[in-house]
Amino acid sequence: MRDFSSDHRWLSLNTATLRKQGDFSEIIDACARHGIRAIDPWREQVANMGLDRAARAVRDAGLDLSGYCRGGLFPADAARRGEVRDDNRRCVDEAKALGAACIVLVAGGLPQYARPGSHPSKDIAAARAQVEEGLAEMLDYAKEARVPLAIEPLHPAYAADRCCVNTTAQALDLCDRLDPGRSGMLGVALDVYHIWWDPEVMGQIARAGKDRLLAFHVCDWLVPTKDILNDRGMMGDGVIDIKRLRAAVEAQGYAGYSEIEIFSNDWWAKPLDEVLKTCIERHRTVV
Amino acid sequence: MRDFSSDHRWLSLNTATLRKQGDFSEIIDACARHGIRAIDPWREQVANMGLDRAARAVRDAGLDLSGYCRGGLFPADAARRGEVRDDNRRCVDEAKALGAACIVLVAGGLPQYARPGSHPSKDIAAARAQVEEGLAEMLDYAKEARVPLAIEPLHPAYAADRCCVNTTAQALDLCDRLDPGRSGMLGVALDVYHIWWDPEVMGQIARAGKDRLLAFHVCDWLVPTKDILNDRGMMGDGVIDIKRLRAAVEAQGYAGYSEIEIFSNDWWAKPLDEVLKTCIERHRTVV
Repeated sequence: MRDFSSDHRWLSLNTATLRKQGDFSEIIDACARHGIRAIDPWREQVANMGLDRAARAVRDAGLDLSGYCRGGLFPADAARRGEVRDDNRRCVDEAKALGAACIVLVAGGLPQYARPGSHPSKDIAAARAQVEEGLAEMLDYAKEARVPLAIEPLHPAYAADRCCVNTTAQALDLCDRLDPGRSGMLGVALDVYHIWWDPEVMGQIARAGKDRLLAFHVCDWLVPTKDILNDRGMMGDGVIDIKRLRAAVEAQGYAGYSEIEIFSNDWWAKPLDEVLKTCIERHRTVV
Repeated sequence: MRDFSSDHRWLSLNTATLRKQGDFSEIIDACARHGIRAIDPWREQVANMGLDRAARAVRDAGLDLSGYCRGGLFPADAARRGEVRDDNRRCVDEAKALGAACIVLVAGGLPQYARPGSHPSKDIAAARAQVEEGLAEMLDYAKEARVPLAIEPLHPAYAADRCCVNTTAQALDLCDRLDPGRSGMLGVALDVYHIWWDPEVMGQIARAGKDRLLAFHVCDWLVPTKDILNDRGMMGDGVIDIKRLRAAVEAQGYAGYSEIEIFSNDWWAKPLDEVLKTCIERHRTVV
């Protein structure tokens, strides 16, 4: 397991962490100030700046992109499938232009939430089948572009409205069915927030192996959790044994960034530099 | 699958559903008014009335007890293990005195939440080991008393602070290890709220089989969920395909009650008779 205590060279910042404090350009400047050498930007932040300008800004700053958030949201009415496909193809094109290491895929939940306007459904099995179908189609396009896709299993609390891929096993089953040859173009993005509770997680990390482990995200699970979406904790403030999970992915050979992604009304209310200082300190001590 | 549309003889009321509207005696009276013939009471409600009086009231009302809530909360510091054991033995004694069909077991989460005052821990694997140890001890006592224990897997959102048994598979693994002979004294209580998201749930219900299916609870998952504990929905108001899950347990031979358990700030604020009328109507239409 790598020693993170003396520097933060393996810290990547998911830009949603500073969503309320700055735009993409301000976040890039802040990373330079704090010696952060990698980010994972969100599509809307990039779109607000314009793709070409954003790509240039990333290059000029010498930033790595540990990922690009986010593709997916597959379940939809039949009439909207073309829209879903085109949206995800644009996502691949953007990721390629930006030089992202992978696209983080959030599968989507029931169709009425994944693609609003779709007919309401309670059939989560059908949503899962649509995810597989949409992902298969997106993977063909992503392979052409040489942009790896990282399925992020989301905590079961989000199964209805955000993502019906809810365990590492389920994500890896998708990988095995759609990419049996382990091409390196399909894998998982594991966020400790989503997987820490899973009794099977250690075995599934071993099953994933290095070639399926495309990203590793950190934050913490707070008790109590006041808001099901936007009350994630700063690493060390909650109950997750983060080091144990990092040790497990690194035991498989994962040698990439440890990406900080904190959706938090509390942290969004704090000054940008205070947040980054705390992220760096916690990265060195509890991640 | 049984037809629930013409009566509510298979409706059981978990008394937490009316926790704020009435005491145990008032809830029993309300059940009589509404032709509800089974309940699942909570220990504190029974304790407030006194065990002997409560047992007599249940008998006089001719009520079945589909369960008794709740035993468990096993993880604790070594110094508190005796307290945990004694507490659970009292729970068995009470369930026997009341004539409950089973004890609903909520395993407990990390020790500092399961038994406050215990040393803080982030080791969920250790908490799970303590659950198994405590449950094995309780099972010996429950077998003597002929009171079946029903492990309730709780949604992963509660893994830290309420219950570290979070999937049906995990609960059944415990059953298989502690009761390989399928004595009928150890099984699961499946609540649609906790299991609906699980991609493995249908296979696990089949694995459970009739002799492990001790209780079936219903409510609904709302989108958005405003409070992680107390915003459960009335059946039909959320996204759970309840009939599909009931069909699966009944396909295994489950022929017991469909127990309504709704923790909800919204429903606790409504008049008792309105809640029960709605429960009955939804039981007949969407359960």
